[in-house]
Amino acid sequence: MQGDNDSSVIARLFVDTSLKAQQALKASSSQAHYLRHVLRAQTGSLVAVFNGMDGEWLARVNLRHRSNCSFMVEQQRRPQAEEHGPWLLFAPVKQLRLDYLIQKSVELGVELIQPVRTRRTVVRKINPDRLHANAIEAAEQCGRLTVPKTCNYADISDVVEGWPVNRMLFWGDETGQGTPALPAFREGGRDAAFLIGPEGGFENSERTFLREQHFTRAIDLGSRVLRSDTAAIAALALWQGALNDIAVA
Amino acid sequence: MQGDNDSSVIARLFVDTSLKAQQALKASSSQAHYLRHVLRAQTGSLVAVFNGMDGEWLARVNLRHRSNCSFMVEQQRRPQAEEHGPWLLFAPVKQLRLDYLIQKSVELGVELIQPVRTRRTVVRKINPDRLHANAIEAAEQCGRLTVPKTCNYADISDVVEGWPVNRMLFWGDETGQGTPALPAFREGGRDAAFLIGPEGGFENSERTFLREQHFTRAIDLGSRVLRSDTAAIAALALWQGALNDIAVA
Repeated sequence: MQGDNDSSVIARLFVDTSLKAQQALKASSSQAHYLRHVLRAQTGSLVAVFNGMDGEWLARVNLRHRSNCSFMVEQQRRPQAEEHGPWLLFAPVKQLRLDYLIQKSVELGVELIQPVRTRRTVVRKINPDRLHANAIEAAEQCGRLTVPKTCNYADISDVVEGWPVNRMLFWGDETGQGTPALPAFREGGRDAAFLIGPEGGFENSERTFLREQHFTRAIDLGSRVLRSDTAAIAALALWQGALNDIAVA
Repeated sequence: MQGDNDSSVIARLFVDTSLKAQQALKASSSQAHYLRHVLRAQTGSLVAVFNGMDGEWLARVNLRHRSNCSFMVEQQRRPQAEEHGPWLLFAPVKQLRLDYLIQKSVELGVELIQPVRTRRTVVRKINPDRLHANAIEAAEQCGRLTVPKTCNYADISDVVEGWPVNRMLFWGDETGQGTPALPAFREGGRDAAFLIGPEGGFENSERTFLREQHFTRAIDLGSRVLRSDTAAIAALALWQGALNDIAVA
């Protein structure tokens, strides 16, 4: 929807090294391919780079070596800022919709992504590298200074057992017994997490287990039956609206 | 995320005819295929049917004729209800993401879907039958009693010129000059529409044109750069949270 303010910057790229002025960086092979063949970058083209720690920097592309693409870091464009956001726990959906869910949740400010296995989860395993790569791509796209942490696929019971004391875990209760999401998010404060169950819903024993935890709260996301990825995106948008930057002038 | 409350109902189907008890209906060829080969329905299997006017009815599948699939309507399950919701005007994105956007917007209660052409819209034409079929499928899935109206692709200026007096048109202003979405939605009341621009953003002349209309209001959807489909879904979720059933107990 938005273009970069500085129209001479042709790409925004995440790098895995520290950043300072006059530093030369080697592009990854996929970055080199993207710059050469998709964007048709030239030596001297300007990119923005970030690493999640040192803010965002301008850098010049160097394509002089045929087998190599590097950047020369010039000046800082934005200082690093903390990007606290909600955590998202979800029973994975199939690949294309999973990619989409990761993209949307990163755009909507998620800080941590935790795929969870529930009794009715159909997806047996997920590719952690693909999850991480998707999170990076979305962070590059949406202007974030951090890439959300992506966790390994884990059983819901294990995730809940190691839960941090002060973080409220909101879970989508499809039986309609949850409280309305928006006021619940406001009351829950800024350390929040969402748990979205599988397409087949939670089993009764899982609902009971969730209700027993003192840090959980069942929420209701409206009268229509939402697919699990829609529920996750709606919850994140509502949370940003209730507590964070969508509602604040 | 949610299953049907009545687990003996194997599908929920939209039909294009009036509904009353003891009426026999012929299934469409795609419904027949879906019932026979995807769901492996039997003669006597129970489905729910709706037509957007007569509520939702239980019906029995009849597969006795090899080349034919029909339903016998039995009793009404839910009376018809009005499903007023916001309108969504959007510059189309490419096909898979467009399908996804339609699905999500129907789940989030949209009443009318209007693809609009702006100066920077890349997509030249869209398939109205596919748009409509996607809206039907999502309405079947999410339990709605109505299928949103899907309009033909039209120029933004034509859509705005014929605008109904009392409906507030919120547009996503990616320059950051809009007002925060949630309070704006609350003030705008229940007759609302959202206009989401193309990936490249609106041109300045389009922004000026939109600002000149007395029924428009520029909104801000937060500090991150949202893709246009994310912006549309976030706006719908926030509107439901601000005015409708996500926030109301």
